[in-house]
Amino acid sequence: MKQVFTGIAELYTPRQRLERAAFAVQDGRFVWVGAEGSLPEEYRGWPRTDLSGRSEGPSAPGGRRYLGVVPGIVDAHTHLVYGGDRLGEYLKRARGESYEAILAAGGGIYSTVRATALASEEELYELAAARAALFLAQGVTSLEVKSGYGLLPEAELKMLRVIRRLGETLPQRVFPTLLAHVVPKGWEREKYVAMFTAELIPEVARSGLAEAVDVFCDQGAFTLEETRRILEAALSHGLKIKLHAEQIAHTGATKLAAELGALSADHLEQSTPGDWQALAKSGTVGTILPGAAVILRKPFPDARAMWDAGVRVAIATDHNPGSSPLYSPWLGMQLTLSLGRLSAEEALIAHTEHAALALGRTDLGRIEVGAMADFVVVDSTYALEPLYRWGNTPIDSVYIEGEKAKDLGKV
Amino acid sequence: MKQVFTGIAELYTPRQRLERAAFAVQDGRFVWVGAEGSLPEEYRGWPRTDLSGRSEGPSAPGGRRYLGVVPGIVDAHTHLVYGGDRLGEYLKRARGESYEAILAAGGGIYSTVRATALASEEELYELAAARAALFLAQGVTSLEVKSGYGLLPEAELKMLRVIRRLGETLPQRVFPTLLAHVVPKGWEREKYVAMFTAELIPEVARSGLAEAVDVFCDQGAFTLEETRRILEAALSHGLKIKLHAEQIAHTGATKLAAELGALSADHLEQSTPGDWQALAKSGTVGTILPGAAVILRKPFPDARAMWDAGVRVAIATDHNPGSSPLYSPWLGMQLTLSLGRLSAEEALIAHTEHAALALGRTDLGRIEVGAMADFVVVDSTYALEPLYRWGNTPIDSVYIEGEKAKDLGKV
Ligand SMILES: [Zn+2]
Ligand SMILES: [Zn+2]
Repeated sequence: MKQVFTGIAELYTPRQRLERAAFAVQDGRFVWVGAEGSLPEEYRGWPRTDLSGRSEGPSAPGGRRYLGVVPGIVDAHTHLVYGGDRLGEYLKRARGESYEAILAAGGGIYSTVRATALASEEELYELAAARAALFLAQGVTSLEVKSGYGLLPEAELKMLRVIRRLGETLPQRVFPTLLAHVVPKGWEREKYVAMFTAELIPEVARSGLAEAVDVFCDQGAFTLEETRRILEAALSHGLKIKLHAEQIAHTGATKLAAELGALSADHLEQSTPGDWQALAKSGTVGTILPGAAVILRKPFPDARAMWDAGVRVAIATDHNPGSSPLYSPWLGMQLTLSLGRLSAEEALIAHTEHAALALGRTDLGRIEVGAMADFVVVDSTYALEPLYRWGNTPIDSVYIEGEKAKDLGKV
Repeated sequence: MKQVFTGIAELYTPRQRLERAAFAVQDGRFVWVGAEGSLPEEYRGWPRTDLSGRSEGPSAPGGRRYLGVVPGIVDAHTHLVYGGDRLGEYLKRARGESYEAILAAGGGIYSTVRATALASEEELYELAAARAALFLAQGVTSLEVKSGYGLLPEAELKMLRVIRRLGETLPQRVFPTLLAHVVPKGWEREKYVAMFTAELIPEVARSGLAEAVDVFCDQGAFTLEETRRILEAALSHGLKIKLHAEQIAHTGATKLAAELGALSADHLEQSTPGDWQALAKSGTVGTILPGAAVILRKPFPDARAMWDAGVRVAIATDHNPGSSPLYSPWLGMQLTLSLGRLSAEEALIAHTEHAALALGRTDLGRIEVGAMADFVVVDSTYALEPLYRWGNTPIDSVYIEGEKAKDLGKV
């Protein structure tokens, strides 16, 4: 399929800003990107889609308004599949109870494990698909989804089957990850790690139910040594690896991620300049999760210092019912702008190009020749207007591989 | 008009939490509030409105779902009327330029003054009405709107006429305020203050175009002495008073507000325990503006300490194109929960009952006998679900004086 898109007032690639831009798409990929006025001869006969919108408001009566365009948003860290909610726990935490104490008392993650066990695969699928539709309306075109609320082997596989079905049915691209979250109640740690490495990882690798393995390496979850064993097992089975690192306590997980060549080290609330140097050197992406940092009242990761230290900083929602019931990547970017001192342009790179690197992809989150034609049309002449408006995201439409995505609430 | 409302799973008054609640409304006010099972005999024959919604999702197939209800949200500090936008300045600030430096260089507020001068009353009205519709969809049933982007007498009156028309036409209750914002370029300070006190305030009092006078008392705006003169003139003309206090520098404005019996002292980023004691003693509301604090990267006001010191803490959006392009009171409450350490229940009180006190009203922002029947039906069985979901506000419908409000985007 061949298509030329015009009617673009401003476009971020995200590294470059173009005015009056246009691009050509063939078979789902960008084949040309540039100024509308300099569209090469060979694309002039292609079918055209004018992205401009109807003008609203008194300042521009009648005519059409050219709109802003940014790459499809990439969310490289979500826990989108779960049963139940944790609103009651949220209210308690707001009154001052700690996340760690609630987890240690068998609440927190464990309560979601119980609710997820009670839900059927069908229910889990429908709940997650409804959430994914909200994410699509926010411009999220690729998202990673983790297991981790199963804990027991069969329950983890059940979650991964739900994630596979999401990938088969959602308009978005879905990246499945097996997560070692916490040791189930009633299990010896050693036995659980042995089961995870000797049974679950091989089974997941064999069935193709996950592309990557993640470990929650922290106080109350897995130790650094256990984490290393799990990640090395993942690597030996050809799976990619990533980490929940330095969220509650500083454990050394970030340096382990760098050492083992992980795709990303995520969270980083307690990370240090030494950790950033390790990430910068290895090229491992440092993914900050603004929802969890702010909602759990943790120190906000110093995104500015990390960026300046050469880390490829990404932003993700960490959507989950406990520490980060965050539904908007734009709000995550805004929090990072204010509390992590990135610029708006950097925040956009962090949630597109860098987030794609955290999935091991250089052909996502970019509007450039060869990349997948995923993009967001902003309901404003300014492409960065969704970063300016807090609590209101003006999005006109979302395209995936050059096709307008269905199921978009307001479109 | 008489009506009984049922189908409520959970209701916050906001101070009390009721389950399976109901209430009766007569002539726009609550006349009874209690448990659905104990509806008194005298209301049983009244027409009923069932607020419950259709169940969605696999967990509750078929039936109807009782919903949560909270008081109508009160926004006691907005600059809703303006021309232009300040997205370019926003991007610059995110790159590290300071608000103060931009203002001093003739940008910031002055750039909105220029854009507002270029817009007709009709344009300003339509832009503000569109913003008010977004606020209504978020459950805002009463809102204060300030002038202050006119500066010159005729331009200030033009803004106040737009605000009056908003009050006449919007479904919401509108509270108009005359704001002394900054000294216009080219004016001597002394002459401007003299004009403001001797001409503008009397004219506004005479015409009824504003109920209150506000002064931006801060570095780069008005001094404490100038502020006192303006506020005393307002009081002598029977107008209520309020202040922009301690945002950029600590000026003593909060103590002045307490001394003069102002409705509220707003901002408070730089306020001290001594200021909180003065507010607690006088009963002057302390209004924090989370949007401006976070977006300008200022210290977040210590809402927890203020509340514990006995201050009646309110929250407002401060919606404006420069320091706070915030469209969601829920996001303001969430930021206060995380960064100001209020509980969710306290944050709700701050944006309803306390915010109404900042408008001098005890009959708004409450679901209790005698109060105006303004309320928000939440699209969840949990009344506080909009505080749990970050970046997604589940609202079913909004009622003002017992009537379903029109123009609600998703309803
Ligand atoms: Zn996570
Ligand atoms: Zn203000």
